[in-house]
Amino acid sequence: MTVEFRAGLEGIPATQSSISFVDGQKGILEYRGIPIQDLAMQEQNTFLETAYLLIWNELPNRDTLAEFEHEIQFHRRLKYRIRDMMKCFPESGHPMDALQACAAALGLFYSKRALDDPTYIREAVVRILAKIPTMVAAFQLMRKGNDPVQPRDDLGYAANFLYMLNEQEPDPFAARIFDISLTLHAEHTINASTFSAMVTASTLTDPYAVIASAVGTLAGPLHGGASEEVILMLEEIGSVENVRPFLQDRLERKDRIMGFGHRVYKVKDPRAIILQQLAEQLFDKFGQDKYYDIAVELEKAVEEKLGHKGIYPNVDFYSGLVYRKLGIPTDLFTPVFAISRAAGWLAHWKEQLAENRIFRPTQIYTGLHGQPYTTIEKRG
Amino acid sequence: MTVEFRAGLEGIPATQSSISFVDGQKGILEYRGIPIQDLAMQEQNTFLETAYLLIWNELPNRDTLAEFEHEIQFHRRLKYRIRDMMKCFPESGHPMDALQACAAALGLFYSKRALDDPTYIREAVVRILAKIPTMVAAFQLMRKGNDPVQPRDDLGYAANFLYMLNEQEPDPFAARIFDISLTLHAEHTINASTFSAMVTASTLTDPYAVIASAVGTLAGPLHGGASEEVILMLEEIGSVENVRPFLQDRLERKDRIMGFGHRVYKVKDPRAIILQQLAEQLFDKFGQDKYYDIAVELEKAVEEKLGHKGIYPNVDFYSGLVYRKLGIPTDLFTPVFAISRAAGWLAHWKEQLAENRIFRPTQIYTGLHGQPYTTIEKRG
Repeated sequence: MTVEFRAGLEGIPATQSSISFVDGQKGILEYRGIPIQDLAMQEQNTFLETAYLLIWNELPNRDTLAEFEHEIQFHRRLKYRIRDMMKCFPESGHPMDALQACAAALGLFYSKRALDDPTYIREAVVRILAKIPTMVAAFQLMRKGNDPVQPRDDLGYAANFLYMLNEQEPDPFAARIFDISLTLHAEHTINASTFSAMVTASTLTDPYAVIASAVGTLAGPLHGGASEEVILMLEEIGSVENVRPFLQDRLERKDRIMGFGHRVYKVKDPRAIILQQLAEQLFDKFGQDKYYDIAVELEKAVEEKLGHKGIYPNVDFYSGLVYRKLGIPTDLFTPVFAISRAAGWLAHWKEQLAENRIFRPTQIYTGLHGQPYTTIEKRG
Repeated sequence: MTVEFRAGLEGIPATQSSISFVDGQKGILEYRGIPIQDLAMQEQNTFLETAYLLIWNELPNRDTLAEFEHEIQFHRRLKYRIRDMMKCFPESGHPMDALQACAAALGLFYSKRALDDPTYIREAVVRILAKIPTMVAAFQLMRKGNDPVQPRDDLGYAANFLYMLNEQEPDPFAARIFDISLTLHAEHTINASTFSAMVTASTLTDPYAVIASAVGTLAGPLHGGASEEVILMLEEIGSVENVRPFLQDRLERKDRIMGFGHRVYKVKDPRAIILQQLAEQLFDKFGQDKYYDIAVELEKAVEEKLGHKGIYPNVDFYSGLVYRKLGIPTDLFTPVFAISRAAGWLAHWKEQLAENRIFRPTQIYTGLHGQPYTTIEKRG
């Protein structure tokens, strides 16, 4: 069968996978078959439990989870050499570039072992999940001229990150909201960063190179940067009164409305529904945010104008508001996305290895043949 | 049209491209339509001219080439901070991990600009081609405890790399052979590293992130590591007499013979033909290598046994012997491949940007639906 060319491989299956599932018409997202609402809204569920589920295809029991949490906690610290390396980074650099360089550098420290060794897989998963938050927080402090803060063993995964970032212990409720947000962003089938992780993994390169590749891909404005752009847009709108004039103007100029619409979802993204609830809870507890009122008004106005086209808020629309209220600087939104999505990348890495075939698609050649080499004297 | 799943996207076109073309039945490889033999064997051609051809789709005239060479020469030095960063790398780390981290870190130093700005594209191309050889050579010296050597403005691209690596000016003939070898490895349609560069690029991330992703992919043993394994195999064989017993044994155990066979070529790889000639010229001038005799005997024996199956030497079979004779350590073979292939990666990056669509293929979902969230007390 000859396959026609489709830009971006749209509609072309690149893998067989049991990690997550999306039904964009019904607004369903499942991790290993469990609807995202059932996971995220469980009092008991944590991001680390979710990561375990995604990677090992089962919910851990009490002992398994405790052991996993303990290993992660144990590996949170960065080596001196990584911290010294980060001191060489210019403060003006983008945190995603810093994260990609750090992720790649991790591979220098750990000897490469056979990828069919479950112990090696486990160690890599633990190190990557444990160290990415520490690297993100360290760069944030170091670019301000502060020393990085050591992780605190008495704090959970989400709380510890907020502590390292803001240099103070977070309110437990804020940490809980952040943990849920990590769960919501952990996995979403074959997006560009996950796909780049799979392509890189398919040459049997080491796991740190795989994650570095995915981080570099997520850094692009078409992928990871949207929640940042939502905040910039809300700031531009500035007031509830200005929502409808702003929208009208954008629609007339056929500009995109950031945080709305999705290739797959034709209804409101189930993650956006949850994130909106979390945002409301945060504002109730820690004070209102005028940008939230603007966002709600914008959602209403967009629904009136574009709802019939299946254009509704996506995951990025409310996540920036949540991150802001948690004290996360705008240009760390994408690194925070990486902390979360690392779970999905690792799950796809492991799945790719289990039935690996190197990615080597073909091309439609559109050039010439048998061209002469003209010597430099004869060139125009 | 529903597209069936094919592992590794085999036979599925992922792009429309005019950069290079391969006919595996006839043993043809063309860069921008020019047969590789006509390019590589031209007295006048250099790797930088080839890179220019691949990236800008024309052979440069005298002024254009001089300007390009001058810019490359000007940007060869590494920033102090990059060198300080490299001092934090453990000596035991793999040079490909070092190169991936350095490539990613480059992005920290240069502000991101619009990707439709030809000046920005040009600057990125120049910096990447200029700095990768310096980074590879610097890590080699630094892991031995030496200070890195500054590039020398009076030396060409290939000669300067060998100088920085070996701390002495290379014989001009050796530099010329190395330059041809760089041309031969510069581009080869949509291989895994090039594809990962395209996927990463498709989110409009910065060029340093794109190259870092490709380096991480090339590092995998299924892709970039083969020329290294050829040398290890030749060392294992040890003598011309042992070639046939060794081959018999491998065939009986259905093991792969490193450096033979290719997904596309069913005849001898045109690059292998040229590399073998280069190897012979090197040995004539600088003394024989007993492993070359072993290699020639192995090629003869494999052709007798497997030639009817279309299994012939590929590009990796003779390249390791050439690199060895040039004083390149075995674990730098893949980084040297990266120096060369960066030209192809950049050409595909530029082509991808010109008609970009984010890569987001689909998956065949093989998992369950509507699974319950069981609380931790009830898990086995």
